Amino acid sequence: MTYCVGIEVDEGLVFAADTRTNASLDDVRVHRKLHVFEYPGERVFVVMSAGNLATTQLAVSRLRRDAEDPSAPRSLRNFRHLFEVAEYVGEVLVASQVQAGSDNPHGGINTQATLILGGQIAGERPGLYLVYPLGNCISASPETPYLQIGESKYGKPILDRIVRPGTALEDAARCALLSLDSTIRSNLSVGLPVDLALVRAGDLRVSQQMRLEADTPLYAEIHDTWSRKLENAVRTLPRFPWEPQAQATEDPSALPPLPPRRVPARKDPGDQSAQQ
Amino acid sequence: MTYCVGIEVDEGLVFAADTRTNASLDDVRVHRKLHVFEYPGERVFVVMSAGNLATTQLAVSRLRRDAEDPSAPRSLRNFRHLFEVAEYVGEVLVASQVQAGSDNPHGGINTQATLILGGQIAGERPGLYLVYPLGNCISASPETPYLQIGESKYGKPILDRIVRPGTALEDAARCALLSLDSTIRSNLSVGLPVDLALVRAGDLRVSQQMRLEADTPLYAEIHDTWSRKLENAVRTLPRFPWEPQAQATEDPSALPPLPPRRVPARKDPGDQSAQQ
Repeated sequence: MTYCVGIEVDEGLVFAADTRTNASLDDVRVHRKLHVFEYPGERVFVVMSAGNLATTQLAVSRLRRDAEDPSAPRSLRNFRHLFEVAEYVGEVLVASQVQAGSDNPHGGINTQATLILGGQIAGERPGLYLVYPLGNCISASPETPYLQIGESKYGKPILDRIVRPGTALEDAARCALLSLDSTIRSNLSVGLPVDLALVRAGDLRVSQQMRLEADTPLYAEIHDTWSRKLENAVRTLPRFPWEPQAQATEDPSALPPLPPRRVPARKDPGDQSAQQ
Repeated sequence: MTYCVGIEVDEGLVFAADTRTNASLDDVRVHRKLHVFEYPGERVFVVMSAGNLATTQLAVSRLRRDAEDPSAPRSLRNFRHLFEVAEYVGEVLVASQVQAGSDNPHGGINTQATLILGGQIAGERPGLYLVYPLGNCISASPETPYLQIGESKYGKPILDRIVRPGTALEDAARCALLSLDSTIRSNLSVGLPVDLALVRAGDLRVSQQMRLEADTPLYAEIHDTWSRKLENAVRTLPRFPWEPQAQATEDPSALPPLPPRRVPARKDPGDQSAQQ
């Protein structure tokens, strides 16, 4: 499995992807799923992938080969519009799936893959596309300013509640990390490290890029801080009719202290099943 | 589809269920999925159901018939332990599935159902069980203090981050409503109204019960307030290394004002696809 999310806000694009691939539960590896194609001042693209790893690596290799070949008739470098690039990426994806399938004499292996493509070409607004295994694609929109591939459910609520076109680029990036963190927590087949890239509108390059491990201070801090903030937020939600209203304060410092989330050793809660 | 969640904390039990059933996308109805069996001072049970509606209604009817028949050899009233009640509920569920299946000469219909059973018998701690279609069951535990049936993914992250055995009963109930709200927002087959029941340890009855509609002030307020609290929480998360640190304040009043989430009419964002 995999989880990648792309967000398009007025200020630019955010890309975040996990790095775990698994052939089965006992065959787990780390592979990059966020790929940057950068031609500073001219155009920039980021491609994220979910699905068959051989297919996605083949597709990315072909995209890179063609882009580096000035004589290639079709490549990331010679389209004027992003939607044309999305169509081209779809064609390369379909061809890569076919080759991966035809290379396999035994059949029965799913060689499908799905991509997220985002970026900007000089003279256009940035854009974000989801490229399906059939090669067709959809774009993000102001009403749906994010696209997900892979294990999308756990990380969707935070995006639905927060991300709007007017969201600041870095706030959108924090949402993407929270969305990844929720998914990593709930699905073993999605795992750290996380790759993050930001493309600010008009920069025509990757404005910021980082890889976050469990012990990267920023990720650890977000992971720890978020639960505490949520807990405080839950406690200051409206009271039920039967509750005393006095506790309804917005001031977190007035709340009772929370127990630490990370403790060196926990008390064994015991085996409750023996009680019954 | 359906979404029901049961939470077991030290203070007692929380049950929350949606009420939408659908035979297909164009055949959507409202049916209660949270059922109370209350014998005040002696024992109290709450059963929530997901799956084939005919099966779950049959199972609940049988449970109620047997409980009201003093001569019934096995019923909700004559077991001494909650785990025995869970076994019995499993048997009734299996029998109901078999009957629903045997009543159908055409086959091919999935008559399976899954239940959550929780409650308390005098002399025991409260307990919470998930009863599988096979009739076997698992119980909640201090490490996993909640159980879900139906569309469980969207509503899981908030539970994972907040609910622990020491969580206050009403805070757990607020988490359950948030979990439902996240799911309702993301899956059309899960819908309002929401049924909520609280069983405080030792009360030996349903301590609080309410049905929340979209216009119930508490639900509307939770729905509206939560997004705003999340947004403030996101804005006060740790900054990226390249951001100015000055904004890292915990005081929500210092943040820029947020646009209203509910506005009478929105500006048409226009058709961006025409731009490319």
